[in-house]
Amino acid sequence: MWVAAAVAWEAGKPLVIEEVEVAPPQKNEVRLKILFTSLCHTDVYFWEAKGQTPLFPRIFGHEAGGIVESVGEGVTDLQPGDHVLPVFTGECKECPHCHSEESNMCDLLRINTDRGVMINDGQSRFSIKGKPIYHFVGTSTFSEYTVTHVGCVAKINPAAPLDKVCVLSCGISTGFGATVNVAKPKKGQTVAIFGLGAVGLAAAEGARVSGASRIIGVDLNPSRFNEAKKFGVTEFVNPKDYDKPVQQVIAEMTNGGVDRSVECTGSVQAMISAFECVHDGWGVAVLVGVPNKDDAFKTHPMNLLNERTLKGTFFGNYKPRSDLPSVVEKYMNKEMELEKFITHAVPFSEINKAFDLMLSGESIRCIIRMDG
Amino acid sequence: MWVAAAVAWEAGKPLVIEEVEVAPPQKNEVRLKILFTSLCHTDVYFWEAKGQTPLFPRIFGHEAGGIVESVGEGVTDLQPGDHVLPVFTGECKECPHCHSEESNMCDLLRINTDRGVMINDGQSRFSIKGKPIYHFVGTSTFSEYTVTHVGCVAKINPAAPLDKVCVLSCGISTGFGATVNVAKPKKGQTVAIFGLGAVGLAAAEGARVSGASRIIGVDLNPSRFNEAKKFGVTEFVNPKDYDKPVQQVIAEMTNGGVDRSVECTGSVQAMISAFECVHDGWGVAVLVGVPNKDDAFKTHPMNLLNERTLKGTFFGNYKPRSDLPSVVEKYMNKEMELEKFITHAVPFSEINKAFDLMLSGESIRCIIRMDG
Ligand SMILES: NC(=O)c1ccc[n+]([C@@H]2O[C@H](COP(=O)([O-])OP(=O)(O)OC[C@H]3O[C@@H](n4cnc5c(N)ncnc54)[C@H](O)[C@@H]3O)[C@@H](O)[C@H]2O)c1
Ligand SMILES: NC(=O)c1ccc[n+]([C@@H]2O[C@H](COP(=O)([O-])OP(=O)(O)OC[C@H]3O[C@@H](n4cnc5c(N)ncnc54)[C@H](O)[C@@H]3O)[C@@H](O)[C@H]2O)c1
Ligand SMILES: [Zn+2]
Ligand SMILES: [Zn+2]
Ligand SMILES: [Zn+2]
Ligand SMILES: [Zn+2]
Repeated sequence: MWVAAAVAWEAGKPLVIEEVEVAPPQKNEVRLKILFTSLCHTDVYFWEAKGQTPLFPRIFGHEAGGIVESVGEGVTDLQPGDHVLPVFTGECKECPHCHSEESNMCDLLRINTDRGVMINDGQSRFSIKGKPIYHFVGTSTFSEYTVTHVGCVAKINPAAPLDKVCVLSCGISTGFGATVNVAKPKKGQTVAIFGLGAVGLAAAEGARVSGASRIIGVDLNPSRFNEAKKFGVTEFVNPKDYDKPVQQVIAEMTNGGVDRSVECTGSVQAMISAFECVHDGWGVAVLVGVPNKDDAFKTHPMNLLNERTLKGTFFGNYKPRSDLPSVVEKYMNKEMELEKFITHAVPFSEINKAFDLMLSGESIRCIIRMDG
Repeated sequence: MWVAAAVAWEAGKPLVIEEVEVAPPQKNEVRLKILFTSLCHTDVYFWEAKGQTPLFPRIFGHEAGGIVESVGEGVTDLQPGDHVLPVFTGECKECPHCHSEESNMCDLLRINTDRGVMINDGQSRFSIKGKPIYHFVGTSTFSEYTVTHVGCVAKINPAAPLDKVCVLSCGISTGFGATVNVAKPKKGQTVAIFGLGAVGLAAAEGARVSGASRIIGVDLNPSRFNEAKKFGVTEFVNPKDYDKPVQQVIAEMTNGGVDRSVECTGSVQAMISAFECVHDGWGVAVLVGVPNKDDAFKTHPMNLLNERTLKGTFFGNYKPRSDLPSVVEKYMNKEMELEKFITHAVPFSEINKAFDLMLSGESIRCIIRMDG
């Protein structure tokens, strides 16, 4: 089938809406009609390809909601018409990770930013005049139709509005889960959130829901703070306002450090600060931001020996197929608000505007309507 | 009182047994008669003072067993004749750490390797002709009598043989606790232990007791392996035998990495390997070794993001006064064996031999008899 897709021909250059051929789903694959997609900073990193492996031409996009159009051989869990969220990290349900209670890093379907092809046959399902266009993290949702592995798709309540729950397909689940599933603050504890984009604000929301007594938001962009209050952030620290390391500022504000921190920036310096700002003895720091290829996390080992814990997580440790449907139900039951994360919307034809809005720090999430 | 004490006059030079004046215990202090002490690698680092702050002349020693000789003002928990283990990290029972279930890093009495004086008045209780001799980590057990803060002393079952349970005052509790209290392997999991000295072998013992399916011992000294079998170590890896990083060797042996690792070497390179050799998704690495002042722990942040956990611990996360008596009971009930850790014994007059035995890698623990 021929569809409109936003192709990134070169690093950092505006996407171009092209007529792209989308092949039928192969064994264990499904073809999805994407209705809504949004932009996450991970798309931007690999599109900029500054600190990441370049792979072009490519169709980005991994935060989206859609409907199954057709299914390939061997697919029994899904059928045409099912409402779904594609997810950048999959769940085969058979490997040691899928069997583990602790991990969501499926051996077969975990995030792979360098692959660009389907695992089935090492081929792309996208082409223009026979020339293949690379996939991105198995989802490539900046296209009217896309093909994904069946394990990278969560079937959700068909009553859920896809223009809202699409943000659960990456950023909001990632941030919320990083706090509630990994950092696990106890009621009354203090939490620092580094980076107040959608992921960080969702992490703050997780801290609020957990009953944190103070939620300290850290961002280089001071305009983030007003927005952040809606997500329970009680104090704001801009590292640029101090001539000492922000971990020291936070330690002074909190009598030795916060109980929990969640890093949602992608900056390795923020990762180090997020670790070093937690209290010795019991503090837990969780890394979420996607680092550059050549980054090094560096700290004095004594900061570890002093009984701090350091962890990282993908997709908030949710298993996409097993857990995401119930996160959608949280929204349906009004236990979780999504509207406040969605600050902008553009038609597909203006997808590049979503990039501008993220790069300027104006948007939290910008929904891209595929019918526009 | 005048007593015999082994004074380190200079970094790396043999200790000299001197007549030293030991002042009476002040407020919240006790004076202990040391009966048995042993040598831990932490003593050796600060005596060598290669990667650590030098502070001389000093009386080292922190792994010991003794009897309370006299108590200072305000001491109600202890009385002369009580059998005790002094501990390098104390427990005031009043600070946020002592109140926390997770931490044993007492705000008042946590390990401080740079202090060298009593916290009460900033003075030393040791002197020769009026010239003060520095303390070491609040214990200084290489002396017939020593003065400690009451919070740095665990009162134990008087029936426990001090020549055996003295090794619970640091190394064995540290290693055993690092595994059972912090790494917490589940039954059937794989565990790597870096460093097969007393601390590492006690960590291996913790893994054995936890039902680990494989215990991989890593050491640069191949003679450690025979000894290690007694502690449940099932396989041995010498990093020198490979021309690839040991974390890669272990990942290949274990289909992606061990479930748990415990580092007990003090080498920052081993700390990095111990972290990177745990399985992504669920692996937990615990650092125990004391690093050099200028060491940097360095890893790619993706190793963290891939859902590994990194922690550190002092004294196996035991609270010395609250928990150590019951660790002694484990020995008394034959749930824990201590004899196999004790490979050598020397009279006090030959204390320098204990240093030689540790530096040559011959001893696990060498007991120093103070009456000799
Ligand atoms: N681990 C995962 O599963 C996962 C999933 C989604 C996104 N991510 C990553 O999470 C991060 C956040 O994504 P987002 O979509 O919310 O991005 P965003 O651009 O909306 O927000 C990032 C925020 O971090 C701030 N920031 C950047 N550097 C900083 C620094 N040094 N100190 C403090 N603040 C700083 C920015 O000003 C911005 O407000 C990105 O790195 C993204 O790649 C990870
Ligand atoms: N965190 C704590 O509370 C605590 C308490 C006691 C001891 N320690 C530390 O634990 C460590 C072990 O103490 P110990 O008394 O058992 O010492 P030890 O000297 O008896 O044993 C250390 C072992 O590590 C091995 N080793 C050294 N470098 C290595 C490397 N790069 N790779 C593999 N093996 C290596 C040595 O060959 C030796 O067998 C020391 O660093 C000590 O300071 C920490
Ligand atoms: Zn994302
Ligand atoms: Zn799997
Ligand atoms: Zn010790
Ligand atoms: Zn205390």
